[in-house]
Amino acid sequence: MLVVGIDSGSISTGFGFVEEKGRCLKAVDFGALRPGKGLPLTDRIDFIFREVSSLFEKYSPEVMALEDIFMAKNAQSALKLGQVRGAIIAAAGTRGISVREFSPTLVKSALTGYGRAEKTQVAFMVTKILGLDAKPSSEDASDALALAVTALIRKEIHP
Amino acid sequence: MLVVGIDSGSISTGFGFVEEKGRCLKAVDFGALRPGKGLPLTDRIDFIFREVSSLFEKYSPEVMALEDIFMAKNAQSALKLGQVRGAIIAAAGTRGISVREFSPTLVKSALTGYGRAEKTQVAFMVTKILGLDAKPSSEDASDALALAVTALIRKEIHP
Repeated sequence: MLVVGIDSGSISTGFGFVEEKGRCLKAVDFGALRPGKGLPLTDRIDFIFREVSSLFEKYSPEVMALEDIFMAKNAQSALKLGQVRGAIIAAAGTRGISVREFSPTLVKSALTGYGRAEKTQVAFMVTKILGLDAKPSSEDASDALALAVTALIRKEIHP
Repeated sequence: MLVVGIDSGSISTGFGFVEEKGRCLKAVDFGALRPGKGLPLTDRIDFIFREVSSLFEKYSPEVMALEDIFMAKNAQSALKLGQVRGAIIAAAGTRGISVREFSPTLVKSALTGYGRAEKTQVAFMVTKILGLDAKPSSEDASDALALAVTALIRKEIHP
């Protein structure tokens, strides 16, 4: 089973494809999409939609794991974040990829056993669980991988 | 030239296609997309993306006019609205439809000459300018038509 985690943002959107083979989790591809900062928001949304769509075409994941957002700093940043997220959900929807949402607490708890763990601890566990040579250079990629791992771990516990 | 106005919302998204022929503006199609209220937000986003995409396929508009949103009631509603808007921008982007944004004040001023006009006055002018038999039954469709008309009127004044 192949799951993609997406950590959406208008400046940088992290992605992480994780495959489950037997009892093993393997990172298939991960990284961060960074539309030019100078671009208008509509162009950045368009860029992310295209890039995410082409990654979905390439790997055909079954499930997309997103962070469940209840809160945002303010209405202005919520609008920006929301628009990027909507484009990503649309890209998944057209390909029949089901969307699952996980709270940050749940992700931390699934990876470290502690719902209020530090970000570095989560990144360390991502590296360890997936057997990566080094911590992903992008924090957004690491967060995206953590989301994908959570979806796969949770599936086993609560199928 | 064919312009589509979209008044996005997670409950109801209005659309209005307006064509300019010579000095005449004509409503080609308008209405409102209403995903089931009981659906999860991700499914509603997916529904709106599909419906909007199929309307874009059918009419091939050159320009999409959206309301320029600076404000939202709160971060929670901004997130919802943002996600729907992002999906719509993605649908336009993949078809090379350029996006233009207009503030509510500008729309009101373009249609009625008064930036703080009442909604009913705007709806009345939409009906009049487009020569409709009656006011559109959906307020969202009327607002969408007003956006399309604004884009076409502004184009003439400020090409």
